[in-house]
Amino acid sequence: MEKADLILTADYLLTMEEDTGLIGAGACAVRDGIIADFGPSYEIEKKYTAPDVLGGKGYVLMPGLINTHTHAPMVFLRGIADDLPLREWLEKHIWPLEEKWLGPEFIYDATRLACLEMLKAGITTYNDMYFYEREAAGAIKELGMRAVLGSGILDFPTKIAKTRDEYFARAEENIKFFLDNGGLIRPAIAPHALYTCGPECQKRAAQMAEEYGIEMHLHLSETKWEAEEIKKLYGMSPVKFLDHLGVLSERVLAAHCVWVDDEEIKLLAKRNVGVAHCVESNLKLASGIAPVDRMLKAGVRVTFGTDGAASNNDLNIFGEMGTAAKLHKAASGDPTALDAKTALKMATIWGAQAMGLGEITGSIKRGKSADLILLNIDKPHLTPVYNIYSQLVYAAGRSDVEAVVIDGKLLVRDGKLLGASERDILGKAREWAEKIKGSI
Amino acid sequence: MEKADLILTADYLLTMEEDTGLIGAGACAVRDGIIADFGPSYEIEKKYTAPDVLGGKGYVLMPGLINTHTHAPMVFLRGIADDLPLREWLEKHIWPLEEKWLGPEFIYDATRLACLEMLKAGITTYNDMYFYEREAAGAIKELGMRAVLGSGILDFPTKIAKTRDEYFARAEENIKFFLDNGGLIRPAIAPHALYTCGPECQKRAAQMAEEYGIEMHLHLSETKWEAEEIKKLYGMSPVKFLDHLGVLSERVLAAHCVWVDDEEIKLLAKRNVGVAHCVESNLKLASGIAPVDRMLKAGVRVTFGTDGAASNNDLNIFGEMGTAAKLHKAASGDPTALDAKTALKMATIWGAQAMGLGEITGSIKRGKSADLILLNIDKPHLTPVYNIYSQLVYAAGRSDVEAVVIDGKLLVRDGKLLGASERDILGKAREWAEKIKGSI
Repeated sequence: MEKADLILTADYLLTMEEDTGLIGAGACAVRDGIIADFGPSYEIEKKYTAPDVLGGKGYVLMPGLINTHTHAPMVFLRGIADDLPLREWLEKHIWPLEEKWLGPEFIYDATRLACLEMLKAGITTYNDMYFYEREAAGAIKELGMRAVLGSGILDFPTKIAKTRDEYFARAEENIKFFLDNGGLIRPAIAPHALYTCGPECQKRAAQMAEEYGIEMHLHLSETKWEAEEIKKLYGMSPVKFLDHLGVLSERVLAAHCVWVDDEEIKLLAKRNVGVAHCVESNLKLASGIAPVDRMLKAGVRVTFGTDGAASNNDLNIFGEMGTAAKLHKAASGDPTALDAKTALKMATIWGAQAMGLGEITGSIKRGKSADLILLNIDKPHLTPVYNIYSQLVYAAGRSDVEAVVIDGKLLVRDGKLLGASERDILGKAREWAEKIKGSI
Repeated sequence: MEKADLILTADYLLTMEEDTGLIGAGACAVRDGIIADFGPSYEIEKKYTAPDVLGGKGYVLMPGLINTHTHAPMVFLRGIADDLPLREWLEKHIWPLEEKWLGPEFIYDATRLACLEMLKAGITTYNDMYFYEREAAGAIKELGMRAVLGSGILDFPTKIAKTRDEYFARAEENIKFFLDNGGLIRPAIAPHALYTCGPECQKRAAQMAEEYGIEMHLHLSETKWEAEEIKKLYGMSPVKFLDHLGVLSERVLAAHCVWVDDEEIKLLAKRNVGVAHCVESNLKLASGIAPVDRMLKAGVRVTFGTDGAASNNDLNIFGEMGTAAKLHKAASGDPTALDAKTALKMATIWGAQAMGLGEITGSIKRGKSADLILLNIDKPHLTPVYNIYSQLVYAAGRSDVEAVVIDGKLLVRDGKLLGASERDILGKAREWAEKIKGSI
């Protein structure tokens, strides 16, 4: 018998790899943080012994979910101003609150809440765009998550930086820091969007991404206004203009891509750009419905992002997946569009690939990091089972996640956080909310 | 101190009545199955004593959710054939399976699973359209739910009945039976849809509904094909044609209403027809997006239905509510459309009214039946709270429901069913699924 640190076993093991597919019943042996082995349960249990064995009958084992676009600390503004027109929402509520409250302590406390919420929902990796990355990193390390932290770049002064050079200097400092000391955290450069961070800024960000071999994370064609504004300013629609600038590449992870035509879709596919589809945020802010069916058919690597909790209002990839898999059937008029297995790939392996982490996470494969989740499917809403992919996409939810492992470490067990105090995190969040409420 | 059977208390009590609104913190005293009293917690707790007090800090107390359109026993076909074109789905999968398997025992076992799933998701009342109502009723009574059971009428022979007269005779027998012996179950007449149950059938059903003072439950303008077919056959679109037949009234609960124009919307409002919006089913089957924002603005009483679990794939009004409240903002281009409070009314008081149960359930009001749910909101994805309506619609989910009371009886406590064996219900469902799988 070989020694493992942990064995996870289940009625259904979804590798999310084409060649290995679905194993029922299957198990995974975890050792030194990686997936040492996986296969039919009877083989793994014959070959390995471990101090801890989780799962068993009534469980699904799969790679952790990947959230490719969020602003995690915005959980502290969850639901603070809903059902409002976009400009009023941003200008009268979100921006003034951010300007007033954002700071190192806010970011640390809010990131702890966001990580707690994501972990319990089976998200093991997320792609963030915000500010105060060092403080965010402290919280992320404490909770044990994997993340890519994009240093936000804007082309106007804020409390974060006064000049373009200052933004880039801060970003470069962070990039170097995380490349050396990041652990499970990697840096990215995040030039917010074309309308807030113009052509020169975007080119400079792309160069920095290339120089350091990191991801470039931006908002792209989120609203009709944005698409029209960029066309007015530069004579080209946003995707075409970015390509014209030489910015589009497989390093780019573009959030939204709601207002893109067939020509732009072809460009996104050709340049191998990752798209973070944030369906719930796009619906709630009335931004529109991204042409996901057409993007997928054109070969674009579409993935799922929750966006910030102020516009969603939760960090729940199960929710995004279910909504998207249903919506795009009606949006395209084709009930075969965005089938369940494709939705699960978007939420796992494609998400990892789009973030430049395809060799590390996103699927169950020997040698990859043990970023795994166990779902309890012994429940009324998940009974009976005819097709497990379909069940996970159309009927399962975040609360079915029972165990979460990242980098081989068991972080959630029986639905409960192990490494930090949930009470403490929620208590801090409520203290902040009282202060924020008092200020409006 | 007055005696009560049960006291429910919470940080937020949502009455879902305009005049009483939101009470924080609030409590409800339940006695002899009804809401004896409600108000601020300190008043209720000073005035009443009860052997059992539930909820407290970190809870929301609200009326149970109302599911206004489902085919409950179809839970046994959950996910059996997904991501397929509608005709193939129906003709090659669902209909042959129904023809083969439907029978009294199937209905009883499947209805138990459906009620279990709905109860745990906070649904206290549902509106069903299927067959074998007596067997369904046995299961519903066992689990303690409130329901309206529509006797299905079709204009062609099936194993249920051979002639139109036979369908109506069966329906009438059931109506009389449930009016006399229904308990929490009421009968309805359910002429399936205009394309399966023609004008004469619809008129006869409407007369029967009028005669017995019951609800008439049908599918209406679900698909573009249906709308076009009815126009081709009768020279009028479905809603107009039904009105021409004199069938539309406040007794009618029409499921779907996806393909309705402004004139038809006006008619639905004028006749006070209840509409069951089944957003997830409409999306998943690519039927289209109902003009809910326009219906609401025209004064139509829109409510939420899950439809059957074969096309959804769960019985979850929290899911329907969240999806709809987000979708209709994008569909109408207006981020203020279908605000959170309206969504909650649709899911509670309006649902009850549309089913003819507005005096009995759907809100917290003295003298109404104690159909209540407690949600535990002391959770990461529900922290912090700025607006409780918004939190429930955009961030909460079925798994946050912790206690369910119907007719004053505590049926779910700590998220667990009290009156029947969950193990037994799930076990039976799996036995059926094995048999069904073996037949395909």
